Amino acid sequence: MKRKKKIPRPVIRRLPKYHRYLKEFLIDDVDRISSKKLGVRSGFTANQIRQDLNWFGELGQPGLGYNVKELLNKISRILGLGEKYKMIIIGAGNVGQAIASYIDFQVLNFKLVGIFDANPKIIGLKIQDITVEGIDQLVSFLKVTPIDIGIICTTTNNAQMVADTLVDNGIIGIWNFSSVDLEVEEETVLENVNLNQSLLTLRCLMNHRTYL
Amino acid sequence: MKRKKKIPRPVIRRLPKYHRYLKEFLIDDVDRISSKKLGVRSGFTANQIRQDLNWFGELGQPGLGYNVKELLNKISRILGLGEKYKMIIIGAGNVGQAIASYIDFQVLNFKLVGIFDANPKIIGLKIQDITVEGIDQLVSFLKVTPIDIGIICTTTNNAQMVADTLVDNGIIGIWNFSSVDLEVEEETVLENVNLNQSLLTLRCLMNHRTYL
Repeated sequence: MKRKKKIPRPVIRRLPKYHRYLKEFLIDDVDRISSKKLGVRSGFTANQIRQDLNWFGELGQPGLGYNVKELLNKISRILGLGEKYKMIIIGAGNVGQAIASYIDFQVLNFKLVGIFDANPKIIGLKIQDITVEGIDQLVSFLKVTPIDIGIICTTTNNAQMVADTLVDNGIIGIWNFSSVDLEVEEETVLENVNLNQSLLTLRCLMNHRTYL
Repeated sequence: MKRKKKIPRPVIRRLPKYHRYLKEFLIDDVDRISSKKLGVRSGFTANQIRQDLNWFGELGQPGLGYNVKELLNKISRILGLGEKYKMIIIGAGNVGQAIASYIDFQVLNFKLVGIFDANPKIIGLKIQDITVEGIDQLVSFLKVTPIDIGIICTTTNNAQMVADTLVDNGIIGIWNFSSVDLEVEEETVLENVNLNQSLLTLRCLMNHRTYL
C-alpha cells in the first residue's frame, strides 16, 4: 500500500495562509507566481515557501514559478475544503455565541448543526437559526447524528468531561476554547485557542519589548 | 549599563502556563516543587522546564526543587502582572462583544476603558458598563487617554487603517482578531488570534490524521 507522505505540523499550519494568498492572486487573474512574490505577500521567505510546497510534488518550474490554480487546488484538497465537516458547539455563553455568529462556516464549508448548554436560561434560545438544546440531550443527539468537530466553549470545570463525552461518541476533532489542557487520545485531533494565554503573552512581550 | 537577558519568545509563550500551574500548587499549599512534578502537571518535560526556568536565575536546588512562591513572583513580574494595562476594543460586532464579556480583565489585571464602532446601530449600546463610541471619536479619545493595548475586532478591510491610527497615537500593544496580517513598526508588539486559520488547521489535521 502506498503511504502518503507525512507532512509536518508546522507546514500544515502555514497552508491556510498560502491558500488565502493564492486565492487573492487567482482573483487578480495571476496565472503563475514565483515563491519570491508569494513570499512578499505572505511574509515567509522564498526558501521556506519552496520547501513547504515541495511536499505537494513538482508544481514549480524554475523561472516560471507555480501554477496558481493547480497549487490552490492541491492545497484545498489537503485542507479538506471539498468536504463538509459537521460541527456542534458545547457551551452557548459569550464565547460559544460569538463563535456561532463570527465564523463564516458557509464560506469555509463547515456546517454548524447543534448548540448545547446546561443553563436553563440559554436552552431554547435561537442562535444562527439553531435552537440551543440542553446538555443532557448531547449523547442521544450524537447517537443519531454523526458529528466531525466539537467546539468546546464551556467553563474550565466542565471542559474535560465534555471532551470525553464527545470522543466517546465518535467525534475526532476538538476545537477547544476553554483554558484547560484537555487530555484526549492520540487519534483525536485537538486545536486549542487559549485567549487568556494569548493576552498574557502580549502583555509579557510588551513588558519586555526593549529586550526582545 | 546592565542589559537584561533576552528571553526567547517561545519561553515567554510558556510562562503563562507555568504561572497557572504554580498558582495551583500555591493554593494547594505546596512549598517546593520539582521540575518533574511541574512537568507532569503542565505536559512539558522536566528538562524543558529546567531550561526555561534557568532564565530567571538560580531558583532551583538539586534535590529540593523550586520554591513555588518565589518562582511565581518572578514569573508574575516578568508577565507584568503587577501593572494595570489599559485597553480599548475597536469593532463591537460579535467578536468585540465576546471579548468584552469573556475576558476576565479584572482577574488578569487589565482595564477595558473604551469600545469603538462605526455602525450607528451599535454606537451608544452599553457593553460591560462601557458605552460604545463612534470610531470618529477614537483619535480625540486617544489624545487625552493613554492606552496600552488596542484590540482590533474590525472587518478585514478596516483593520490596517485602525492599526495605523492606534500606533500613531501611542499604543504599543495590538491584539489582532481580524484575519489580516497587519503591518506594524518593529517597536509595536503584535499578537494575532486568527480563528479562521485555527479552524482550517484543525480540519487539515483531521483530513490527514492517519498520516500525522
